[in-house]
Amino acid sequence: MSRKVLVVGAVALGPKAACRLKRLDPSAEITIIDKDYLISYGGCGIPYYVGGDVTDIEGLYSTASHHVRDREFFEKCKDVKLLCRTELISIDRKAKIALVRHLDNDETEEMAYDRLVLATGSTPVQPPIPGVDLPGVTVMANLHNAIQVKDMISKGKVSRAVVIGGGAIGVELAESLTDLWDVETTLIEMMDQLLPPAFGKDMSRLIENHMTEKGVNILLEEGVTRILGDEKTGVTGVKTNKSEIPCDLVIVAVGVRPSSQIAREAGLAIGMYGGILVDKRLRTTDPNIYAGGDCIEMTHLVSGQRLPMPLGSLANRQGRIIGTNLNGGWEEFKGTVGTFCLKVFDMGIARAGLTVKQAEDAGFDPVYAVVAQSEHAHFYPDHALIFIKLIADRNTRKLLGIEAVGSKGDAVKARVDAVAALFQYNADVSGVSNLEVSYAPPYASAMDVVNAAGNTLENIILGRNIPIDVADLVKKLEKNEVRVLDVRGKIESRPFIEKYGDRWINIPQEELPDRFGELPVDQPLCLLCDTGLRSFETQIFLGSRGITRTRNIQGGYGMLMLSYPEIIPA
Amino acid sequence: MSRKVLVVGAVALGPKAACRLKRLDPSAEITIIDKDYLISYGGCGIPYYVGGDVTDIEGLYSTASHHVRDREFFEKCKDVKLLCRTELISIDRKAKIALVRHLDNDETEEMAYDRLVLATGSTPVQPPIPGVDLPGVTVMANLHNAIQVKDMISKGKVSRAVVIGGGAIGVELAESLTDLWDVETTLIEMMDQLLPPAFGKDMSRLIENHMTEKGVNILLEEGVTRILGDEKTGVTGVKTNKSEIPCDLVIVAVGVRPSSQIAREAGLAIGMYGGILVDKRLRTTDPNIYAGGDCIEMTHLVSGQRLPMPLGSLANRQGRIIGTNLNGGWEEFKGTVGTFCLKVFDMGIARAGLTVKQAEDAGFDPVYAVVAQSEHAHFYPDHALIFIKLIADRNTRKLLGIEAVGSKGDAVKARVDAVAALFQYNADVSGVSNLEVSYAPPYASAMDVVNAAGNTLENIILGRNIPIDVADLVKKLEKNEVRVLDVRGKIESRPFIEKYGDRWINIPQEELPDRFGELPVDQPLCLLCDTGLRSFETQIFLGSRGITRTRNIQGGYGMLMLSYPEIIPA
Repeated sequence: MSRKVLVVGAVALGPKAACRLKRLDPSAEITIIDKDYLISYGGCGIPYYVGGDVTDIEGLYSTASHHVRDREFFEKCKDVKLLCRTELISIDRKAKIALVRHLDNDETEEMAYDRLVLATGSTPVQPPIPGVDLPGVTVMANLHNAIQVKDMISKGKVSRAVVIGGGAIGVELAESLTDLWDVETTLIEMMDQLLPPAFGKDMSRLIENHMTEKGVNILLEEGVTRILGDEKTGVTGVKTNKSEIPCDLVIVAVGVRPSSQIAREAGLAIGMYGGILVDKRLRTTDPNIYAGGDCIEMTHLVSGQRLPMPLGSLANRQGRIIGTNLNGGWEEFKGTVGTFCLKVFDMGIARAGLTVKQAEDAGFDPVYAVVAQSEHAHFYPDHALIFIKLIADRNTRKLLGIEAVGSKGDAVKARVDAVAALFQYNADVSGVSNLEVSYAPPYASAMDVVNAAGNTLENIILGRNIPIDVADLVKKLEKNEVRVLDVRGKIESRPFIEKYGDRWINIPQEELPDRFGELPVDQPLCLLCDTGLRSFETQIFLGSRGITRTRNIQGGYGMLMLSYPEIIPA
Repeated sequence: MSRKVLVVGAVALGPKAACRLKRLDPSAEITIIDKDYLISYGGCGIPYYVGGDVTDIEGLYSTASHHVRDREFFEKCKDVKLLCRTELISIDRKAKIALVRHLDNDETEEMAYDRLVLATGSTPVQPPIPGVDLPGVTVMANLHNAIQVKDMISKGKVSRAVVIGGGAIGVELAESLTDLWDVETTLIEMMDQLLPPAFGKDMSRLIENHMTEKGVNILLEEGVTRILGDEKTGVTGVKTNKSEIPCDLVIVAVGVRPSSQIAREAGLAIGMYGGILVDKRLRTTDPNIYAGGDCIEMTHLVSGQRLPMPLGSLANRQGRIIGTNLNGGWEEFKGTVGTFCLKVFDMGIARAGLTVKQAEDAGFDPVYAVVAQSEHAHFYPDHALIFIKLIADRNTRKLLGIEAVGSKGDAVKARVDAVAALFQYNADVSGVSNLEVSYAPPYASAMDVVNAAGNTLENIILGRNIPIDVADLVKKLEKNEVRVLDVRGKIESRPFIEKYGDRWINIPQEELPDRFGELPVDQPLCLLCDTGLRSFETQIFLGSRGITRTRNIQGGYGMLMLSYPEIIPA
């Protein structure tokens, strides 16, 4: 059957839906419109273009075989009509007509459709800060912003930059500016941690410390109250509730919201976060109108809540589903588990599911383990620690979330993707303990770090492992409320004993059977080893000898050193 | 409750089960016996010790925190008694007494147990080849073999080696010998491919070519008929049904079989592959006797068949389960999906589930897709192809297997582990299409290679994509039975046209709408692009124009080049 399909938006989902439909039904008449002339680009590549990893902007809107995805490409290779600089104004759903405006000549046109696809994406939030519209202040919404910023930098106009917002885009941009361009970069975040919705504060601290080490100036719990400068000189600085930072570039990256205004005006149902509501087949409340990508709300498969999830990977997969369904197919998008990863300088980070806070908000009773272990067999050279935080519900043991950080990004991704695959099946902690991940000494441990995370969390849930977070430990250590029993070797512990005096006790694990009598029975003891495994064994051993006021330091020395480098003796 | 537990075998599963039980019940009286004095080592590290990546043999039997796992370690740190050089002779199940022999003084002892754990591992198959017991011929069963071989090599006694058996151990050893020691190494395999049970022939060809390129001499479909040499000079060569290879070292790696003789003699049930039969709790047919690791048979979760799966990672996880159950817990080992990975020089390979052949043998009707795609966003620098073969049942679309190969091992592992997690849930192909793997340009594509594999397989199952394997293509091309339509650029295709004349046609994809009239309508055409995606689009386009005798070359030029480099013009 021949039919007219109009697709609004030509970045990720729109072209994907169009090309998929065309492959299923070469006779379909498809038109894509976009208000921009730069289209079908990899938006997630913008920070890498700004940072110089991607040298040529064309790379972002070319195919893997180096075809520029422009109007001609879509017409010649895909047989899809593309109207750039064409904006959707309104939808007459009854008549099935979209009113569009051609921006180059300001003329409007009525376009009839049998099916309409809304791929309108999202819009960066522009916070109401005085000075936000000064020259030199920009959001990072599209390629034009990226070109403008890179132009400023490459002309030497930027020596100091401020990025407002410590989410994924802010973190990536701060890296880009610092890493390649050596721009003195300050990253400002209102919350008390980076990446607040994606990572817990403990894991995020590893990321912050790494970024600080790489030269990014991170300001947490600071809110920007004013952007300084004037129309002529442009931005000169940023004022927060605590400080003032001089700069010649400000990038605002405080989040995005679904672009759903016209859908709303057309009477389509909109969710509480402003995203278009769709069913599993990605149809809006009008069965002739599909929507997907950043402009919709989708179901979180762990919490059951509906929310926007602006990720290019989801947009692509949804685009394919819409293409299938436009052809009369029945393909479902069941929801998201919020999987994502990020490169942060020499660190790879990834996560899926809910954080502890999100889990609490969703009504769960979350409990978690933090483990540190080499990403491959400890006897094989060049190993690097991976830190995993695994979260489950205390009562049902249902898996809720995973966060991971390490210096080998692909290895971090491997652990998170494998566990993320379990979320949709309502797996519990034992699903991670027994997860059959592939093993060879260069790539994994026989008892892999991801299995260890499951094992540890099970032990914590069952009360066999009584943990303490490094954050709590540090607080209590500073207040002199606890002593540390360090079961590592004498050499490793000596500097700590010098620094902390009798608050730090060293008995190597193998000497404990003969020496546990030296320990105070009545005082709280926090147990430390390299990663948390031997300290766990120690906890059990001491418990069997009547020393029960012990807490096992989660993630051990590895976690302590990277989270609180300031407490480590020089 | 206090109880006596006897564990037979101190390599992987035995110590794990013992230590787990001890952590759950510090009062348990546990004794581990082993006939060797080198114990608790990472057997999978042996090739890396031979090859020099692991310089110190102690590394293989030390903990991550560099404690040597010897008798003293187990007694001091684990409170577990360890008897080395002690061999199990027989089991009196009724009396719950194990008869053991102390090898150092040849004395026997009766050891009473409440629970017995059989962790007796596996024994290398010693093929009945004349000369197999000559000096310089060895299996690689334990650390002694490894030390002996490394000693020979490091003393300069080995300039040419033959490895018999192209399984995982054979491949790893061939790499070790070639890579570090520059030993001229020949790898002999009786079947027509390397890694026959783990990979299909197509994927295995990528591995073979890579190894050949790295200097390993690979002989397929050759059976060793005699090992040459004499008692005094030792081995001097190997004779096969086709050739004779001079050498001064022969490593026999033709597989292992479960060490289950004493279990059998004690009347425990044994499976058809010689492995001890266990229930999900890993109890043998005697509820007081547990078994796990290489000596048992386990259920393959995809085929439902029972078979041995001698992998250190499974042994470790099973050890923990046995430890839990010894303490009265109820933990189940549901089975295996046969996940495994391997480093082969600069290539990482991984697989899970069934191969096409295994699937056929198990009664499925397998269909598969082979895709090639950069492991991360094509616009981000330094990308490397990953090749994925995804296998499903044609009728039910149930996922059956995945095989992957690429130059970034962690990235290969990431894809396989995520898909492997789905097998246990009886997922179908759409589970891979829509698998929510994490995305960031340095680590993945927005439509990741693993999703692309799912999409392609679905298209093949539904008859939208009609593929041809590169192997078939090459055969037909040589016999002049097909022509290739190369939709890549003019420059890429020119050398092929020079070599193949009118058997090779080039029309770049974007010119097809104007030029498809040039194509023969009545002749079979095989469509080629870089990876198989544009050729798929071409197949659909041509089909809509009445040109229907087309086949899409699976994995495109990438697969062709790495599988059949000989057909690529110089």
